[in-house]
This record gives sequence, structure tokens and C-alpha cells, in this order.
Amino acid sequence: MAAKFRTIILTVALFVSALTLLDWTHEMWKISEIFSSRPARWQQIASAKREANLAKIPREWILEPQVLEDSRSRNSIVGDYMDGLLDHKSQYVTGMDVPELVASMGNGTLSAVDVVMAFCKRAAYAHQLSNLLLEIRFDEAIKRAQELDDYFREHRQLVGPLHGVPLTLKDQFHIKGLDTSMGFIGWIGTFEGEIGTGKDRNVDSELVREFHTLGAVPIGKYDVIDHTDAKPVETNNNILGYAFNPCNQNLSTGGSSGGLAETDLFCEGAMQALRGSAFGIGTDIGGSVSMPASFQGIFSIKPSAGRISFKDAANTVRLKCPSGLPIALTLPNKGKGQEVMPTVVGVMGRSVGALQLILKSLLSLEPWLHDPYTLPIPWRSEMEYRPRNERTYKPAFGFLANDGVITPHPPISRAMEIVKEALQSKGHQLVDWEWPHHKETIDIHCSIARGDGCHDVYDAVHLSGEPFVPEIRNLFPNGKPRAPLPLPEYEEVVRQMKDYRKRYLDYWTSTAERTGDRPVEALLSPVTPYAGVLPGKFYPSTYTSAVNVLDYASVVIPVTFADKSIDVVSPSFTALNDEDQMNMKYYDAEKYHGAPAAVQLIGRRLDEERLLSLAQLVVEALNDYKSGFGE
Amino acid sequence: MAAKFRTIILTVALFVSALTLLDWTHEMWKISEIFSSRPARWQQIASAKREANLAKIPREWILEPQVLEDSRSRNSIVGDYMDGLLDHKSQYVTGMDVPELVASMGNGTLSAVDVVMAFCKRAAYAHQLSNLLLEIRFDEAIKRAQELDDYFREHRQLVGPLHGVPLTLKDQFHIKGLDTSMGFIGWIGTFEGEIGTGKDRNVDSELVREFHTLGAVPIGKYDVIDHTDAKPVETNNNILGYAFNPCNQNLSTGGSSGGLAETDLFCEGAMQALRGSAFGIGTDIGGSVSMPASFQGIFSIKPSAGRISFKDAANTVRLKCPSGLPIALTLPNKGKGQEVMPTVVGVMGRSVGALQLILKSLLSLEPWLHDPYTLPIPWRSEMEYRPRNERTYKPAFGFLANDGVITPHPPISRAMEIVKEALQSKGHQLVDWEWPHHKETIDIHCSIARGDGCHDVYDAVHLSGEPFVPEIRNLFPNGKPRAPLPLPEYEEVVRQMKDYRKRYLDYWTSTAERTGDRPVEALLSPVTPYAGVLPGKFYPSTYTSAVNVLDYASVVIPVTFADKSIDVVSPSFTALNDEDQMNMKYYDAEKYHGAPAAVQLIGRRLDEERLLSLAQLVVEALNDYKSGFGE
Repeated sequence: MAAKFRTIILTVALFVSALTLLDWTHEMWKISEIFSSRPARWQQIASAKREANLAKIPREWILEPQVLEDSRSRNSIVGDYMDGLLDHKSQYVTGMDVPELVASMGNGTLSAVDVVMAFCKRAAYAHQLSNLLLEIRFDEAIKRAQELDDYFREHRQLVGPLHGVPLTLKDQFHIKGLDTSMGFIGWIGTFEGEIGTGKDRNVDSELVREFHTLGAVPIGKYDVIDHTDAKPVETNNNILGYAFNPCNQNLSTGGSSGGLAETDLFCEGAMQALRGSAFGIGTDIGGSVSMPASFQGIFSIKPSAGRISFKDAANTVRLKCPSGLPIALTLPNKGKGQEVMPTVVGVMGRSVGALQLILKSLLSLEPWLHDPYTLPIPWRSEMEYRPRNERTYKPAFGFLANDGVITPHPPISRAMEIVKEALQSKGHQLVDWEWPHHKETIDIHCSIARGDGCHDVYDAVHLSGEPFVPEIRNLFPNGKPRAPLPLPEYEEVVRQMKDYRKRYLDYWTSTAERTGDRPVEALLSPVTPYAGVLPGKFYPSTYTSAVNVLDYASVVIPVTFADKSIDVVSPSFTALNDEDQMNMKYYDAEKYHGAPAAVQLIGRRLDEERLLSLAQLVVEALNDYKSGFGE
Repeated sequence: MAAKFRTIILTVALFVSALTLLDWTHEMWKISEIFSSRPARWQQIASAKREANLAKIPREWILEPQVLEDSRSRNSIVGDYMDGLLDHKSQYVTGMDVPELVASMGNGTLSAVDVVMAFCKRAAYAHQLSNLLLEIRFDEAIKRAQELDDYFREHRQLVGPLHGVPLTLKDQFHIKGLDTSMGFIGWIGTFEGEIGTGKDRNVDSELVREFHTLGAVPIGKYDVIDHTDAKPVETNNNILGYAFNPCNQNLSTGGSSGGLAETDLFCEGAMQALRGSAFGIGTDIGGSVSMPASFQGIFSIKPSAGRISFKDAANTVRLKCPSGLPIALTLPNKGKGQEVMPTVVGVMGRSVGALQLILKSLLSLEPWLHDPYTLPIPWRSEMEYRPRNERTYKPAFGFLANDGVITPHPPISRAMEIVKEALQSKGHQLVDWEWPHHKETIDIHCSIARGDGCHDVYDAVHLSGEPFVPEIRNLFPNGKPRAPLPLPEYEEVVRQMKDYRKRYLDYWTSTAERTGDRPVEALLSPVTPYAGVLPGKFYPSTYTSAVNVLDYASVVIPVTFADKSIDVVSPSFTALNDEDQMNMKYYDAEKYHGAPAAVQLIGRRLDEERLLSLAQLVVEALNDYKSGFGE
């Protein structure tokens, strides 16, 4: 009996030892890879991907080394600088906005090949200057443009309302013929990490299918570095660098970064600022559309969930990419299994008119007949505000200068004041937003977005065998995902969110008492309490995630630029809390000089048509105000 | 050291013993309550509530004991029997449907007091015959009717489109002045189980507020016995009884029951069958609106989530009420913390026209301005099918005679055939629904609805100190709730549900290939595979819960009645599985004779306007077919 018992003990001990040895070997193997001079497997894959991508840029569009070097010494590479690199025709074409492009192709002034070619060239330059494209699709785009031209020649009409318009999409959407890696090395050559499904490079997301029908032409895919809750850390490895903001290269593009060496840093906002495509498509669960737009001085709309299809797109999103190692961090639950605060698809462009045209065109296809999570709500013209029809009524706006959690940097506060004065000069009433509960959204957002313990991050990181970097080890104590929230607690958070939405709407409705007429039609607020992000700093913000908790719609409106001569921290500034103190400490008038400063116009749930028309009203008021024509 | 250790051990032991003793005392106390001759506290509360309710019925409306006795000996007490108990005027008024009632009050033929009084009288009779009302509100209703009449006299117009129309609501909605107990003894005199909130009897649910604005008049509240997954068991206690189906008193009202002695059994379907109100409001997560409607031969609509407000209503729903003890079982997650497959509010009435009027009236109030979970989708007339406008187009229907999980009883299959022939005789195409995956919805529905381990059931049961009955002990092994699903697993189920919805919609869309034109406009299916429930039997069904998993809209249409002379089980019947075998075994042609047999017309998500217009088309085809006027 005792002998049998000893045998069992010995067997178990041997088994445990074997497992430990295996585990240790694996760790040693990973460490040895880091220190070995031979590139690890993941490094080889990344490198091959990088080279394959560059090979897709025609030789005549490759920039000289001295141009690249020169560009790095400049504060801003957008606008005149970028235009100066291009030939006249490309400069002219890429200077046009979506409605003008469509009109020019419609009257035969421009061909689709003219348009697509010009944007591909500019995108190729932008990519070389700022490392923005993860997938390049120039050849296919030009071929499609040729088809569109043939169609136009034959039928004397455009294929659809976005005929020949080049766009870029976040590398979360599948396009036949291209990878969808989202920066995960383990995803390259697979379908969302899976091998042998027959789906890799063989699926079009629903939205891609819709754009095809509308005539729009994807020319590439980029990844957004989601800034939400990002904690950039200093780059501690020389092969990596930040994706700097092309509007102010002191600043990041809109989030912390590091990544697949220098070539695979991407930012839709930067692509738009550099005008590498006519419009861009992103996704947003905590500000990933609004923030990059605001940092780059462009327009965007993040609708409520259910307006634009997210069907058949990849289910995770890079949240932050701590420097030092090529690992991508995703925000869990963003995709397919979390529906109480879902990821929404948003659009970035150069004008409110462009955003309106794109949303209207998509809705004309009745996407709800193909995607059960898209709502059967067509474009509702009757909800648009039209000054001509309502001469006697001036919409009132809510005005949230400070959410009580983080005080905005001086350029942002000034942008808010400019909008306020512009609207007041037109006779609009502004109602101070006295809602003291914004802080509640932090816990709600975090628990819903990360309540499951980040198991998908863990899985994604492990796909290619890459080790965890120190900066994210705290997410995985003992090298494993944290225990998920128990379902009853998660449901309690959802209940809190529902209650918060209810109270917020009640507050919104109650503003009718203060306007003496209807409730405010939209709410003005900062997008972030800073006009960009300095590399290596942690910037807290609740201004966008609060919008996701409410599932409200938001339009970003560029207002002005940081100006070191006037944007200084008030001597009377008193921090609301430690994060507020830290945020203001990071403001550096010198470094921020020239950075775009934007505001967001927030509309109630699914109120996009009204919101966009009011955004146009704000833009016109701003234009008049800046030209001194305020009423 | 040793002494100190011994002291610690002793302290711990004493503490554990004390806890055990407390627990034991509590159990003994509960057992002693059961066996003691003195009624337990919960019995006293229930009894007081019952008496207070009866006291709200005017003496002249109290039925003689011999009437009650006589009624129990009858198979059916609806229609002529019920009419025979009433005076002529009440009979005449309560015989009218909602649109006629509003028209009569609008032209001054009837006053609101006439209408409300007549329905209160009929409801009082119905309550005495079938124990349906949990809350009675006759006095307040008549007072409100007087106000409406005053308004009409002064302004010569109705207060709103539902002026003076009496309704009953499920006891999940709060009405100022009334309890909301939902059958939980522990909830009586509280606000959803909480004491001292100041909210008890002091809150109107959003929907109640809307009905008030529209002019409708609540006369009482009932509870629905949700049949979903219900396992009726034999009554083992003489103070309890079933709520029998007034259309066929062999059958249950639409679910298993037991409850707060005989007075507190309720069923909206039965109330509608007995015409105790002009329409009823219920809630549905697995068939709680559709099933009772089908068993009682009335119409209902269960819209997709987001059309009718559920704001400020109670968060749990009685699922089943196993007999033997007055305990209420709730289906967890039905309320405030589960949003991926939410509870929806539905309407029961006597005609498609009534349902249309009610939904249209509610939407005219723009409920989304008050409830963040109601979608900003007004009534869309343009989606209604209008034969006059589309003479050349005959909508096609999907036809699901058997979902491959449970074969319907003969009366239901015959009802399906009748509809098929009626539609075919009008030239409509019927497309057999070849979708083999209905079974997948069972796990999805169950995991989402019960994944959290039923902790809310546990809490609700414990509120009043009542012990668990044997029938539900298996839900609580060791007397505690089961461990909830881990959040990542729950999210995986949600992902499966999303995928199921996507595949289902793709299948639906693919029917265009079979019709040669548009996809089918709606799908015909049984509501349940049985025409009612015999007390004490377990009846499985997926026909309604599958609709909830899809968040599709469903309209119940009564078709015919079980007929023992023709509805016999086919000798060639072969069971699909054990549940199917059991279901067919329970069919008893003799007992079911006369029970209503209905079908449901299912529409895609948020397609209510089209669906109701098609339901009207089906009704007209049925009428013509039955009168021999099929084309």
C-alpha cells in the first residue's frame, strides 16, 4: 500500500517537474530571442510585411532620403509643406473635398483615375513621412477607378453618390486581397488569428461592400492608436519611435505608440491631416474617432451605435501599444461579445458637408437589411435644423467648459470661448452645463470595457510568442489575465449605466426650463482637456468616454490653434485632483504652439441628422466670427 | 504561544458554532411556520392584501356564491356566458373595440364615465370568476373619466387618441397610489422590495405617464404567469389552485401557477378574453405576451426592443410560481442589468386595428425624449403594406410549420394550414422555412436569461422569509444560487447570439431567390406547439424564445379552435426527440376541445408597421376564406 502511494507521489512530482521545465524552457526561449542577435520569428514576419508594403509604392513615388530627413526637422508637415512635394495636378485634386470631387467627376471635369491616382500618390508620400498605412491598395484602387470611368463613359452617370472617392479605413475592416492584422504579428496571413478558415484575404466587411456599391474606392488601411486610458511610456528601445503629429511633430498622433518598428505606426487623423485620402473610417468606444480628429484639426462624426454597420469586421482594437516591444494591446470587449456599450463606426473628413454626404449615402443602402445590428433609420431630413425654415427660433446649446474631473489646457478653453462668443453673436443662447456626475462614467466605462479581465489581449499577445513588456505586466498579475467581474456585478454596472443614461436625459430635458423654450439642441464640450499628447506622458480624460457611456453622437469641430503668446496657464488655476494637477503640469506652451484645438458638439442618442446640421451652423458662426462678421 | 493558539482556535470554533446555530434556528423557524396552525407573517400579509383588494369592488358588483359555483362547472366562461351576467349597457359598451370606443366618445354617443364604468364592472366580474387582478383602481379610474368628460364638455375635443379607453397593465409598471408587488409578498408596501425610499406608491412608470397623456385610463394591474420554461406541478396544498383558462377551464391561463392563495392568480390574456379591459400591456422576454394571447384567442404584438418604453418599471418578472407555497419565481436578468436580449413591452387587444392605434398613439409622444432606451423611430406609415397602392405585388410569406424541435399539436398544425390556404387563395406565395438551426436558440436564450445564477430570485424569495419549495430547490443547490457564468463565457454566448442573428437575416434575405422577387415580408409560425397547457404538465417550446433571441417583432393572430372530431394525432407521427414525444403525449383531444388555436406572424427587427399591416391582410384573408369568399 505504502509502495503504491510512493509511486503515485513520484509520478505526480515528475509530471509537475516536467511542466515546470517546459514553462521555464518557453520563458528562456523568449528571453533568448530578445537578446539574440538573430531576429526572432515575429521580427522576421514584421519585417517581411513591412517590405511587402513598401514594394506596393511605385518607384516614382518614393521620396528622396534628404526629403525625409528635412521633414523630420519641421514642426508641421501638413498644408503647404505637403503640397510643395506634389505636382500641380495632384495638389489641385487632393485639395478638393468629397462633394466637390463627386461633382467634378459627375460633370466630367475629372476622371476617377485622376482622383484616385492623385490621392494614392499623396497617401504614398504621407506614409513615407509619417508611417501611417498598414495595408496598401493602390493598384487595385486604380483598376477600380478605371472600371468606374468605363461605366461613366458608357452610361453618362456615376455609379453612386461616392463615385471615385478614395478612402482609407481602420485595419479592423476586412477587404478581399488584403491582410487584417491590426498590428498583431500573429494575425498576419490569418483570419483574425485563425489559420485554415479559407477566409483570410477573402472577406469584405459589410461596410466595405456598401462603399463599393456607392462607388467609393479604398486605397489602404491604417490602424488607430486608441488613446483612451493610454499610458505612453518612454521608448526604451532604439528600433521604435512615436508616430508624431504631422501638425506639430512635438506631439503624438493621438495616442501612445510604439509598434512594429517604425513602419507600422498609423493614425487615421494624421492621414486626414496630410490629406492622403478624401475621408477615413474609424471605430470608437472611448474616443478613438473623436480624439485623433481633434488633434489633427479635422472634422469627424461618431454616431450612436446602430447607424453605420460594423458587421464582419475584426473584433478587437489596439488600445495602447506600450513602447519597447512590438506588442499590441487591445481593449477587450470592444467587438463581438459586448453589446451594452458597443464599438461604433465613425467618419473623419474635411467638412460637415462631407460627413453628411457619406452618412446619407450609406443609409440610402438600407444596411439594416444586411446587418441585424444596424437600425432601420434612414436619413431623416426632417430632423435637420434649417435656419430658413425656422427664422424665429434660435437653437440653444449646452456649454460644458469643464467636466469637473479634468480642467482643459488653455488652448482648449480658448477654443470653447471662441465658439461661445461666435454663437452668442448670432443670438444663440448658451446654457451652462451644471451636471456634477461626469466622474461616475469612469468606473462604468472601465468595468464594461475591461470587466472580463483582458483575456483577449492575453490571447492575442501570445499568438506570435512575444513576451509581455513590463508596462503591461500589471494587467496580468502572475502572467495571467485578472479574474473577470462576476456576472451579477457586471450586470449591476450595466444597471448603473442605464440609470446614468436616464438621469442624464432627464437633465438634458430639464434645460427647457432654463431656455424658456425647447431643451438645448446640442451640447458643446472639449474633446480632450489637451490639444494633443506629448510623447511619454499620461493624459487622463473623460470627455469622450462619457459620450460612449451615454451612446450619444458627437461631431468634432476644429476651432483654432494653440498660441504660446496667449495660451498660458492661469495663475489662479487650482487643481481639482491629482490627475487634474498632472494634466495641467504637462501643458507646455512652447511645445504645443501650433497644435490644433477643437471642440465637440454632442447630440442625444441617434440624433445625427440634427447634430450635423447644427455643427454646420456652428462652423458658419465661427467663420463669420473670425472674419469679424458676427451679427 | 500554544495557549494563544488554543485561544484563537476556540474563538473561531465558537464563532462558527454561533453561525451554524443561527442558520439552524432560522431554518427551524421557517419549518415551524409551515407546520404551525397560526398563519405565518407572509400569509397574514397576503391575506390582508387580498381583503383590501376585494374591498375595492363595490358591493353591487359582488357576484352571488351560486354564480361563482356555476361558473366553475363550465368549460368556457367567455363570450355569451360573461355577457349574460352583465346589464345591457355594460354588455354593449364592453363589446366595443378601442377604435369604436374612441369614436363613440369623440362624437358624444358615450361618455368616458360610461365606458370606464362598464369595463370596471366587467373587470370586477372577471376578477371574481378567474382571480386576475393584483391591484384594483376602479375609484381612481372613474374619477379620471369624470375629468375627461369635463374636458370634452369644455373643449369639444378628446384629450388624446386614447381618451377614456380603459386598460389593464402587468404589475411590473408603477402607478401612483398602487402597490407593485409582482406577487412577492416581500414587495407589498415597499418600492421593489426596498423600504423607506419614499417611492412606494409614489412613482408612475414612463409608459403610465404616456397613457395618461393619451387619455387612456388604467383600471387595474395583473401579473402574467410567464410560461417560458415553466414546469407546472400538481397543486399539493388545498389553499392554492390554478388560474384556469376562461376559454377552456381544463387548461391553464398560459403558464403554471399557484400563488398568493386563490385571489392572486392573474393573467392578462384571460383578462382580455373576458373583456375586462379594452386592451392590456404586458412584457415579454420568452413569450410572455404572445403565449397568453394565443391561449385566449386574442391579438397581441410583441415589438422589437426599443419601440415601447420600459422605463421606471420593476426589474424582475414572475417566471413560474410552483404550487404549494406562495413563492414567486423570477426569471433573472429580465430587467435592469441585462441589455443584450432585453425585456420588451407588448400590447394585447381584440384586433390588429386596436394594436395599430395604441402603438401609433404611444409613438406620437416621442418617448425617446424621456427614455434613453426607446429608439427615435416614429410611426412609419410608408412601411405599411397597402394593397391598393401595390396591386401588382403580392407579399410572400415564410411558412414554418415545424421548427424541428417540437411538433405542434393537431389544432395548431391545422391553424397553420388554414392560414396557408387562406393566403394561397388570395395569390400569396408561401415559402417553406428551411432553417435547421432553431435548436441553437435554446442554449443562447437560457444562458443569457439565467447566466447569473438566479441570484435575484434567491433574494426575492428570501425577502419575506418564505422557504424554497422542492420544485425549485434544484435551481439552488445547497440552498444557494448557482455560480454565475464567467463573464468571458457569457460574452461568448452573446457573440453566438450576434452570429445567429446575422445568419438568420442572411437566410431571410436569401428567400428573394425563391420568391423571384423581394424576400418574404413576414414569417408564419406556431406561437407554441400546443393550444394551451394542461395543469401539471411540462410543455417545452422554442417558438417564442427564438423570436426573442432574434429581437424580431411578432403579432399573434387567433385562427380557430381545437376540435376533437378532427384534431387527432396522426398515426404516422414520429417524435423528433424525447421532449417532442412528451409534448405530443400530452395532447388530449377531449380536454383541448374548444381551446383557441393561434399563429404568429413574425417580422424582422423593428419592422412593426409593415408587420401589423400584413397581419391585417392575413386577418382579411382568413375572414374571406372562412366565409367561402377566397379568391
